[in-house]
Amino acid sequence: MSGKFITIEGCDGSGKTTQINLLENKLKELRVSCMFTREPGGTLISEKIRNIILDNKNSEMVWKAEALLYAASRAQLVGEKIIPLLEQNVNVICDRYIDSTLAYQGYGRGLDKIELDKLNYFATSGLKPHLTILLDIEPSEAARRRKTRKEDRLEQEKLGFHQRVREGYLHLVKLEPTRFKVISALQTKEEIHQQILENILNLINDKK
Amino acid sequence: MSGKFITIEGCDGSGKTTQINLLENKLKELRVSCMFTREPGGTLISEKIRNIILDNKNSEMVWKAEALLYAASRAQLVGEKIIPLLEQNVNVICDRYIDSTLAYQGYGRGLDKIELDKLNYFATSGLKPHLTILLDIEPSEAARRRKTRKEDRLEQEKLGFHQRVREGYLHLVKLEPTRFKVISALQTKEEIHQQILENILNLINDKK
Repeated sequence: MSGKFITIEGCDGSGKTTQINLLENKLKELRVSCMFTREPGGTLISEKIRNIILDNKNSEMVWKAEALLYAASRAQLVGEKIIPLLEQNVNVICDRYIDSTLAYQGYGRGLDKIELDKLNYFATSGLKPHLTILLDIEPSEAARRRKTRKEDRLEQEKLGFHQRVREGYLHLVKLEPTRFKVISALQTKEEIHQQILENILNLINDKK
Repeated sequence: MSGKFITIEGCDGSGKTTQINLLENKLKELRVSCMFTREPGGTLISEKIRNIILDNKNSEMVWKAEALLYAASRAQLVGEKIIPLLEQNVNVICDRYIDSTLAYQGYGRGLDKIELDKLNYFATSGLKPHLTILLDIEPSEAARRRKTRKEDRLEQEKLGFHQRVREGYLHLVKLEPTRFKVISALQTKEEIHQQILENILNLINDKK
């Protein structure tokens, strides 16, 4: 597999979607070939799973079922799309991946992190990103930013949940400091964009 | 937990549905309190997952995603329904459970059986049935019986697949002979019904 695999992570309200849109436009402009996808979702079947996960009506969902649905969506995306693309030398940029399961279901919900690691491994056959960009933000600031939009089932969780998610992400960075690049989401949109772009171009151009 | 947990397993075309209907009516007549449920499905969320799993349109589904969707549906059913019922002293009879994953995704698809065991354990927190009835049938005979109905995504698999599933079931029986009761599905409807009923009443009345 010679394509590069990059994931973008961050709490809800970290500006991830805005940055991904800016990045996609910029890479097109620079004629850097990259396939963008997202989790949960990214394939026909995974998008159907996404609808179940995020639907506010599914308030009875037990946490293990939630973790397993994320894993199912991921297995489909990896098997049907990400691995075939990387094998065809295409770079793939994915909005959320294995670290989201550890941060949200592990640190946020309190599910066993070793079991979640195994679940991630089963779903992905061990495929790890070459680079993971983490947009880091204080959960209270992220909540303030989310106020302007309709929240899905996970965004609606209380502040304590989002605080544990953020701490989880920062702990994951400590475990794999070379894979992660942490970018403060408190900077201006343009500053953040430049830093993301630089990291991705460095990786793709193998200057790393 | 003092309710009894009973599962009914068998290849597609083994007459499982017919027998479950007969059993449900008979237990009602005898005023034996039992809750019937099914897999995949059995709760609002699990039925939504069932629709994704069995939909013939989802022909691109990768096998690991399939196994994870079954596990997600199971985690929801166990957490939301089966455990609370058993704790309230209600007997639960479930159409398919952990053995289906091992027989279909393990023996049928060829996924790693140790990994599937761990997945089952994660989804169910280790909840095993007190009794599992296996309706055993030759796959060619089962295929002949299925010819009269519209087949779902898994039933449409080739004969070799169903042969591996049956062999898988029989191997699981060897591993846990006291949990399983194997009943030949080649007998008359009434004979099969009587044997299932006897086994279930023995367990519920603790004569076992």
